[in-house]
Amino acid sequence: MTTPQAAWPNINTLWAHALVDELARCGLKHVCISPGSRSTPLVVAFANHPDIHDISIIDERQAAFVALGLSLASGQPVALVCTSGTAAAHYYPAICEASSSGVPLLVLTADRPPNLHDTGAPQAIDQTRIFGQHVRWFHQVAEPEPTAEKMRYLRALACRACQRAAGPDAGPVHLNLPFRKPLEPTPLPEGHRDAVPPELLESDPLAMMGRSDDAPYLHTPPTRAILDEATLDTIAGLLASAERPLILAGADHRGNAYASTLIELARRIGAPLIAEPTSGVTRNAELQDAPLHFGDAIFGSSLLTILGAPDLVLRTGKAPLGWAAARAVRSWSHATTILLSPDADPADPDHLSSWHLRAEPATTLRALSRRLSASMRPAIPTNAAWLGAFQQAETLASQSLVAMLQNFRSERPDAPLTTPEIWHALGERLPDGCALMISNSMPIRDVDAFMAQRRAPLQIFFNRGVNGIDGIVATGLGIALARKATGLHAPTVIALGDVALRHDLSALALARELDLPILVLVLDNEGGAIFDELPIANFPDVHTRHFLTSARADITRSAPSAARISEATSPSELHDTLSVFFENPQLQVVVARSERQLDRDLRAALRAGTRTLIDHRSQGDLP
Amino acid sequence: MTTPQAAWPNINTLWAHALVDELARCGLKHVCISPGSRSTPLVVAFANHPDIHDISIIDERQAAFVALGLSLASGQPVALVCTSGTAAAHYYPAICEASSSGVPLLVLTADRPPNLHDTGAPQAIDQTRIFGQHVRWFHQVAEPEPTAEKMRYLRALACRACQRAAGPDAGPVHLNLPFRKPLEPTPLPEGHRDAVPPELLESDPLAMMGRSDDAPYLHTPPTRAILDEATLDTIAGLLASAERPLILAGADHRGNAYASTLIELARRIGAPLIAEPTSGVTRNAELQDAPLHFGDAIFGSSLLTILGAPDLVLRTGKAPLGWAAARAVRSWSHATTILLSPDADPADPDHLSSWHLRAEPATTLRALSRRLSASMRPAIPTNAAWLGAFQQAETLASQSLVAMLQNFRSERPDAPLTTPEIWHALGERLPDGCALMISNSMPIRDVDAFMAQRRAPLQIFFNRGVNGIDGIVATGLGIALARKATGLHAPTVIALGDVALRHDLSALALARELDLPILVLVLDNEGGAIFDELPIANFPDVHTRHFLTSARADITRSAPSAARISEATSPSELHDTLSVFFENPQLQVVVARSERQLDRDLRAALRAGTRTLIDHRSQGDLP
Repeated sequence: MTTPQAAWPNINTLWAHALVDELARCGLKHVCISPGSRSTPLVVAFANHPDIHDISIIDERQAAFVALGLSLASGQPVALVCTSGTAAAHYYPAICEASSSGVPLLVLTADRPPNLHDTGAPQAIDQTRIFGQHVRWFHQVAEPEPTAEKMRYLRALACRACQRAAGPDAGPVHLNLPFRKPLEPTPLPEGHRDAVPPELLESDPLAMMGRSDDAPYLHTPPTRAILDEATLDTIAGLLASAERPLILAGADHRGNAYASTLIELARRIGAPLIAEPTSGVTRNAELQDAPLHFGDAIFGSSLLTILGAPDLVLRTGKAPLGWAAARAVRSWSHATTILLSPDADPADPDHLSSWHLRAEPATTLRALSRRLSASMRPAIPTNAAWLGAFQQAETLASQSLVAMLQNFRSERPDAPLTTPEIWHALGERLPDGCALMISNSMPIRDVDAFMAQRRAPLQIFFNRGVNGIDGIVATGLGIALARKATGLHAPTVIALGDVALRHDLSALALARELDLPILVLVLDNEGGAIFDELPIANFPDVHTRHFLTSARADITRSAPSAARISEATSPSELHDTLSVFFENPQLQVVVARSERQLDRDLRAALRAGTRTLIDHRSQGDLP
Repeated sequence: MTTPQAAWPNINTLWAHALVDELARCGLKHVCISPGSRSTPLVVAFANHPDIHDISIIDERQAAFVALGLSLASGQPVALVCTSGTAAAHYYPAICEASSSGVPLLVLTADRPPNLHDTGAPQAIDQTRIFGQHVRWFHQVAEPEPTAEKMRYLRALACRACQRAAGPDAGPVHLNLPFRKPLEPTPLPEGHRDAVPPELLESDPLAMMGRSDDAPYLHTPPTRAILDEATLDTIAGLLASAERPLILAGADHRGNAYASTLIELARRIGAPLIAEPTSGVTRNAELQDAPLHFGDAIFGSSLLTILGAPDLVLRTGKAPLGWAAARAVRSWSHATTILLSPDADPADPDHLSSWHLRAEPATTLRALSRRLSASMRPAIPTNAAWLGAFQQAETLASQSLVAMLQNFRSERPDAPLTTPEIWHALGERLPDGCALMISNSMPIRDVDAFMAQRRAPLQIFFNRGVNGIDGIVATGLGIALARKATGLHAPTVIALGDVALRHDLSALALARELDLPILVLVLDNEGGAIFDELPIANFPDVHTRHFLTSARADITRSAPSAARISEATSPSELHDTLSVFFENPQLQVVVARSERQLDRDLRAALRAGTRTLIDHRSQGDLP
């Protein structure tokens, strides 16, 4: 073992070492570091730790989104390190997303000590509570001090910060850490106020070295929130007595933790389970019934006008994404609506719910199924017709989509590539086990509409906390990094529009540096196509200039010249490009070009065709 | 039923009615209202609600502490209503206490609408997030609007605010409510923008009238946080293998919810359970073992030097209050320390804990006892000598305290009344079922030292969130109000020092107005006696002027002249005064005068006497 003086040439070295040591003991695996001087002690400590993967990212805004992606894909807190001044402010957008999505981040901002604040010292701003209410916990860390008391404080603090980020109520945590010079691991003479007294190690080895068994200094084991028995009985009673129960699984990056229990409950009460692709609730091989994925098509039809509205709606995750589904939910004001989500904010902007169950979903769903199986309801539901109608509509929607897309292309073989075809092709072509990061705006809705027929496992990621089109590429890079770290070799596809790419263009430079199997698929539909769907489209001048912000001509020119960019303007070109990538997955940017008006017309035709088919069949089946 | 126009002459009336209606459905029972114009719609709605007790309190600072006391004693959220301007700022001290103590408050501040802000409009300040991070939730409420959408929002909001206040993680919640004129229930002509359209009632009765079965618009049932099985096994293993386990129950206003489960666990592992009087963990008739209450005396002795330090410490509630206990805890750095508390902040300023179990205590303790009873440890503990030594020390401390106090008085029959005697007398004289609100500083410590021999049920209240000596009388008034509302007729005793009374003097005027069985017992020891215990006592000038702030001459003169004030300067006067009050409990202020130096000498003598006795016996018992 080295001498204490060699190991800790000064208090900053010791301080940062102890902090990073405890974070590693708590399971931290990744840190995204942006360069700067004030954070030097932290950077040195992270860079030297054998169990933490340190990633250098120049732009703090990108670093924060990369950390977000790492956390989304690993399910674990990820650390961010930056210097003082404006550095922390660049983290803000990703922190807002992490806060709203419940994604654990550990934000470590270096700061100047108090005596340099409010004095005109360079690069010093007030960093206390700089992220406002968008962090779960803020703590202004003490100045480093080589005493056992302060070292114990620091070790406990590191553990607490990890735990507060991980949850319950997971999200970003901010520690603001002042350091004074020397910031580097420079040896200081014994007796210097910032030298580490040699006797400190013997006087309190626990404070200096941590617990002997590599355990965290302070364990805070995870907890689960559960409902009391009486509430479970009441809810089970509501479920058992519903005649037309419906279950909606909305976007939830934690959804796969309760997918099988939700499918089981749906089967138990004979309820159609409509699960958005972003819900994490996908077919489970062990259970006989698959969830339905064509919710927006079904709710866009007259099925429920014919069958009657549901009398009970159980919802998980975010509010419905599809416009038809959102409209339908809004119209069910007479149904008993039950939200199951541990989040403090109920996902119910229409204020129609009767119940918000803020409990851990899997435990709650299991407890409800157990009650229902015990006595309340026959295992074969009495409302088979209700369930059957949904299943039939799902089959029709799935079949008709494929048929209509084939018809379209055979009738118009020379038409430009269309967005529905792109998503359908992705659904068919993405290899199992692949990751898909989907941008907001149209892509996330198109997945819902045109990739819903895919049933094979696919890890889908998204930033649905605050639905930004910012940081999409960087988030995708973080996802790919996390997958690589855990030995998942299937590639990551980042699908985003041209406007979203423009917002995160410099992330392509970062992507070049990281050797990762990433496909950046740019859905270039000549600007912000989503605004075509909004009434602003009727005001052409401002619509074109400030909403569409058409960027077609720019993408290949504005992207870093080192980025490998190819174009796809027809189904066969798309087919070939995807083949090339999946045969040898290396960073590739594919600009898939479509025409906005044709996309719009085709979307409308597909919607109308499916609706007509479902309506016709549903009416025909009525007695 | 009245016509809609008569029931809701304008939108403000309807808005406030719906809010208050939902709060009542969620179980709200008390509101403290301070006068002012902007809050008129809320005041009218509360005053007219048959199920909510409306209390008018002029001074908002007092109102907030009264609400705190009401909430402490009822265990339920209590509402506060004030006007715009500085009114809300007066709530701040009580909100800080409620936040740190986890006491549910629902703070409803009226505000001017946005168009009157930043314009020089009178009595308008920025009230958004005015309480910073000291509320669990802040929401800027929409301007009243007579639409179904907004009414549903408001009803759901009221339910959510109640739930967020009640917990998990109970505490204050702040809604800032803008209103525009007319604020009174003034009828408006149909078609006026603030008139309620008659057809609204028919169009959405649920939004307008709430759910038909008197249920809240949005149910959010309570949850409990539980640990997973593996963690419980690990903790049970630690408890089972401890040779010298010790359990410390610190101050916790929720302590009686887990008292019996803690006593059971202590019995199961043969651990001494030292419970501060403020812990809520008191003798339970169903269980054979009583907790020990003379912790500070025991830790002030050499018992643990003789026996050896504990190897495992389980703690609930706040960090130890007594100075000897706090010192002892600080010295046990080699023990495995486990904190059991759902609070986010571990009560461990020394950073010595290995575990923080953030789970619901009663459930956790039951689960641990079940594991220990099943297999791990014999029901009769093998470490009987360890437990027996504590029990013997407790008996010695209890007996010697009584004997020494009797000796003191028989030797010095004419000595002035002393504080230890006052507390001992209270312990003996307070009727069962009585409530005791104890001020911070010396009183809460004296209870620990000199009232510990009391075993009969007593509801003890305190503000140990941030330990202020502010608002003590007002908090006590709230406690007395809550008790009266639930039919508890035993009186409330508010025990506080002369300095604390000076800080809350005008609350005596409020006390006169409320017809309650309250004894305000002023421990007049000539100023801030606690500062005699601190090194500042060695700096006489500043000590006298800014720490002692001796206020003896002032109390009877500065109190409202209408307050019934009597004095007690000897044990017999105290005896008589208490007798008079308990025979016919009506508001009474008793100024119990002691001499600071004599108090100090007696305290030291009692501590020394007890310590000698325990030390002598412990050493004698050693082999």
